[in-house]
Amino acid sequence: MSPRGRRPGGEDTRALILAAARAEFAARGYARASIRGIARTAEVDPRLVHHYFGGKSQLFAAVMDVPVDPSTIVGEVVGGDVDEIGERIVRAFLTIWDSPANQPALVGLIRSGLGDEEMVGQFREFLVKDMVGKIIQAHPGARALPPRERQFRAGLIVAQMIGLALARYVLRVPGLADAPIDAVVARIGPIIQAHLDRA
Amino acid sequence: MSPRGRRPGGEDTRALILAAARAEFAARGYARASIRGIARTAEVDPRLVHHYFGGKSQLFAAVMDVPVDPSTIVGEVVGGDVDEIGERIVRAFLTIWDSPANQPALVGLIRSGLGDEEMVGQFREFLVKDMVGKIIQAHPGARALPPRERQFRAGLIVAQMIGLALARYVLRVPGLADAPIDAVVARIGPIIQAHLDRA
Repeated sequence: MSPRGRRPGGEDTRALILAAARAEFAARGYARASIRGIARTAEVDPRLVHHYFGGKSQLFAAVMDVPVDPSTIVGEVVGGDVDEIGERIVRAFLTIWDSPANQPALVGLIRSGLGDEEMVGQFREFLVKDMVGKIIQAHPGARALPPRERQFRAGLIVAQMIGLALARYVLRVPGLADAPIDAVVARIGPIIQAHLDRA
Repeated sequence: MSPRGRRPGGEDTRALILAAARAEFAARGYARASIRGIARTAEVDPRLVHHYFGGKSQLFAAVMDVPVDPSTIVGEVVGGDVDEIGERIVRAFLTIWDSPANQPALVGLIRSGLGDEEMVGQFREFLVKDMVGKIIQAHPGARALPPRERQFRAGLIVAQMIGLALARYVLRVPGLADAPIDAVVARIGPIIQAHLDRA
């Protein structure tokens, strides 16, 4: 299976791929890193990378130690009524962040990530391309916007969601940190929806 | 002028007060720190602290090396038509952050501040009490909300504004980082306004 005759052995191979991915994301940034290049660095077959991690976004999440699968979330969010996509985004986001299994890793990631210029670049590309970009592609109104306006809307969505994460989980602003998910969804869902809708 | 017979001498006194304020904010947090306590630590008369810095929020800005005066901003924002307060908040915020004289200090502050638990607490109290809290007090609709709802709205405003700062100036998300102030005001102004309005 390996192009150079290595015999991949479970955990070792997984760790090897992760190390190669970390190096590749750091050296080339998220957008320009490729499964093929990561496989080459790890000296394994690209199919093995897909086998262990799925696609690039899952590999990024694994490198970042985030215990959630970005493509599953995006899939859940974009399925269903397009007029409620804003609410689904906010609900999915808060459900993941509220979970005690995820929150410490995510808070650690956002804190260290923002302090490190290299990670900032990787973050930006990941959020814009793989998270918000895919949601915009799934929304007929947003998809039909001129490219510059589409980029602007993506930026507004990133701003709202990252600000929500910071205020609720890092700054822990009273009143927001302890608000029920439904209350936050009711106020932020329509904001995200408005950023996606054509007008 | 000094209670212990010191003769305050310009820059030295200013530096002495700043050092005392830094220690006091760190030890007690923004909300519980007082001009009186800071003056005591610096061994100067509290009136001297007011003379050099104005109030607590200006002293905090000076400690944080932020070259803007929070109370002037709040004053400008709350003056004028209450139905356009959202737009004024966003415009004042972006004007300050866009300025090359302020941006490096503000970006540095947000980056280092979020990585440090003690600074996070000071930030939160400063934003919630002195910035957003004063704006809410100046808006008849927001002021009339029940206390819990008022806190929630303050949290939503903090979330939107800190997310805007991060996405535009730290992550530098394309489409948002390079959008004209007017375009951002047109989209985010009404969001802030809606968080303040009674409904």
